[in-house]
Amino acid sequence: MSSKPERAADAQNCATWLARHLRRIGLKRVRVLPTQGNPIVYASWQHASERPTVLIYGHYDVLPGEPLDRWNTPPFRPVIKGLELYGRGASDDKGQLFCHVKAIESYLRTTGALPLNIKCVFEGDEEVGSPHLLPFLARHPLALRADAAIASDTRMLSPRRPAISFSQRGGLRAELEVRGPKQELHSGTFGGAIRNPVQGLCEMLASLHDEGGRIAIPGFYDDVREWSKEERAYMARTGPSDEEILRDASVRRAWGEVGFSLYERTTIRPALILNGIAGGHQGPGVKGVIPTRATAKLSFRLVPDQDPERVARLLCDHLSHRRPGGMDVSIRTFSPVDPAVIDRKHPAIQTAVHAYQRSFGALPVFVRSGGSIPSVGAFQKHLGIPTVLMGFGLPGDRIHAANERFHLPNFYRGIEASIWYLAMAAKTLTSAPAKQRKTEYVIV
Amino acid sequence: MSSKPERAADAQNCATWLARHLRRIGLKRVRVLPTQGNPIVYASWQHASERPTVLIYGHYDVLPGEPLDRWNTPPFRPVIKGLELYGRGASDDKGQLFCHVKAIESYLRTTGALPLNIKCVFEGDEEVGSPHLLPFLARHPLALRADAAIASDTRMLSPRRPAISFSQRGGLRAELEVRGPKQELHSGTFGGAIRNPVQGLCEMLASLHDEGGRIAIPGFYDDVREWSKEERAYMARTGPSDEEILRDASVRRAWGEVGFSLYERTTIRPALILNGIAGGHQGPGVKGVIPTRATAKLSFRLVPDQDPERVARLLCDHLSHRRPGGMDVSIRTFSPVDPAVIDRKHPAIQTAVHAYQRSFGALPVFVRSGGSIPSVGAFQKHLGIPTVLMGFGLPGDRIHAANERFHLPNFYRGIEASIWYLAMAAKTLTSAPAKQRKTEYVIV
Repeated sequence: MSSKPERAADAQNCATWLARHLRRIGLKRVRVLPTQGNPIVYASWQHASERPTVLIYGHYDVLPGEPLDRWNTPPFRPVIKGLELYGRGASDDKGQLFCHVKAIESYLRTTGALPLNIKCVFEGDEEVGSPHLLPFLARHPLALRADAAIASDTRMLSPRRPAISFSQRGGLRAELEVRGPKQELHSGTFGGAIRNPVQGLCEMLASLHDEGGRIAIPGFYDDVREWSKEERAYMARTGPSDEEILRDASVRRAWGEVGFSLYERTTIRPALILNGIAGGHQGPGVKGVIPTRATAKLSFRLVPDQDPERVARLLCDHLSHRRPGGMDVSIRTFSPVDPAVIDRKHPAIQTAVHAYQRSFGALPVFVRSGGSIPSVGAFQKHLGIPTVLMGFGLPGDRIHAANERFHLPNFYRGIEASIWYLAMAAKTLTSAPAKQRKTEYVIV
Repeated sequence: MSSKPERAADAQNCATWLARHLRRIGLKRVRVLPTQGNPIVYASWQHASERPTVLIYGHYDVLPGEPLDRWNTPPFRPVIKGLELYGRGASDDKGQLFCHVKAIESYLRTTGALPLNIKCVFEGDEEVGSPHLLPFLARHPLALRADAAIASDTRMLSPRRPAISFSQRGGLRAELEVRGPKQELHSGTFGGAIRNPVQGLCEMLASLHDEGGRIAIPGFYDDVREWSKEERAYMARTGPSDEEILRDASVRRAWGEVGFSLYERTTIRPALILNGIAGGHQGPGVKGVIPTRATAKLSFRLVPDQDPERVARLLCDHLSHRRPGGMDVSIRTFSPVDPAVIDRKHPAIQTAVHAYQRSFGALPVFVRSGGSIPSVGAFQKHLGIPTVLMGFGLPGDRIHAANERFHLPNFYRGIEASIWYLAMAAKTLTSAPAKQRKTEYVIV
């Protein structure tokens, strides 16, 4: 639970457990590497000499279990019901990460070797925006050198329709605080004469969207890339329909930017989401006061070619013009993530196409993800390699929500897919020139 | 802490303590009478035969101590610093109620008798709108029969400027709930396509005021009474200035309805106050979700001749037109209180003028209160008697806030004022005709 600093010991325990497991299945150089946040679990197997190297990425951290009362099973105890494994992290990302771990174990237990070199990087702060992964990559570019990265932290369209996510939205988080009177004021004595921070915050937040569902921050859409008719037609053909997306969300009615399908709204169009709000008296009963402060948490999902830093400036400009008179407003922006698009023709991607076909019996479609995966941009930037997002999750997995689950047939086929991927990548990937490989760099 | 049902045992203990104390000082027929909420403490002394009867009203319940970290002393342990007594309820209303208790004790300890008949009604649910006082009065109109009621639950202008509140705003409370997706949704996967209940609630709440600080509910101002130039001039002469009100609130800038002084905005003009809001992730850290629900608590302060029931209908109409598409919205209105104005020429009021002059050395001004005191309307309606609001609190008492306090010189002069009031009321009040008094009705 990387978003809860008080659960750091749990994350440490999870990392230690994972490292022990990796060691037991035969991986080498297993390390639990401290960061400023939760540790990164590293492991490698580099006995395939001239063969290429694949970096396997995953994250063992999860979101908190709240709201706990909405779970039908304990969130932190795995429970199998029918073909589903229930529990926080079942799909995002412990379960998917484990597909690769079990693929490696299968190889080492049967043939005693892997068909290529691998390096595992399993981080513990993905759910808070991977703030410690980038510095880690920047510190160890030689030791982490690889020919491609593979990660399973995305979803397929259905149990028999695999998908490769080649495009992710970027992100930016923000926290707002509006401060009113220094102490709570009696709403009878002062009501009508003193500005209310809850009201001020609501008015500021209401100003962020127009009635048509577009974000109303001036300049916000300036850098949003427009896609060709052909590209949008491919999306319409291959992506989920509006009805499917609504069904996944268990929601009756759509909302958002007019002129775009729901799939487009959640992938090639940006979004601004209010994640939470709090202020004044919130418990049962009543308290007739003007509150002292109100806070909100919000997050942007950004698309090419938006720049998170510029969006942060636009947000601050917009809100500073709407600062309620007489009140202090703080705006904190953090966790910027660049949007990313990966070349669908890269051999690392084409290998995943075939691995899916072998294991799931179907060719994958190329999809765009609405989420933000900071590692993709980070691997590109610091290691110069593409990331293959070969997800095994399903739309109904309820990641980040109560009753998260993982479809067990996907777990087993995911292991197969990983086995095929490693086998084929040994031939399709171009390994770095031999002279670059003479020295083996290690993380100490 | 009447707003916290889980503290019912504390309220019961307080009632029991108060009853024991009243018995000890010599009052008769002391009872702790159960209600659907916290008990009502009743006591009387009726040995003054033909003399008039005064009903002394007060409340022993208080608001919760939260936010606890803002208190400089423990909220539920009284601490004297200089001339101030700190603690929750010090001013509102335990301290003020006690002025009358100590006045009665002074009489009984010195002369052994009171100059008139008295009946004490000390309730335990004032802070949640006195829902059980009205049924209590309706059940016992004969036993509670009196010639006037007196209550000290208001404030003076300053330690030497007493005030009689002859006008109180009415009230109405409301709770809103906006329900969105059935489960929290990943803001990457669904952000931009699904309506957000926090956003929907903010937009609804932002629609309740216009930019000029007026309440934007159609029809809301229809029944607001306009006061004469003379009346507003009296208010300007006798009431607090804008600067004084801002200083009391420790706030730099005023807000609200243009064209009215702050004193007017908080007394003869209605107000709508957002008391609290909650929705989605609120703790430390981040959680990238579209929340399932958002809630808000709000309260109206109403003025003559507004009708709380009509205001409730107008609010529901307004909000139902602004219901965010695809979301369920619940609105609950409760605790309606009629606004009240008392005739300043009534002998019971004029007696208070003289009692203040004797004890505080100054004539009181007639003020209007922004708060809502349901008992005033209830005594009028069920017992047919005026309530004298002879307050001893001060603007800086921080009632309902952290570091609530009572100015001890006001406590002692308040006791004096009560003694004078009882002495003079014995002559000025007209007691009910003797034949009505032959049968003494009691509460059993």
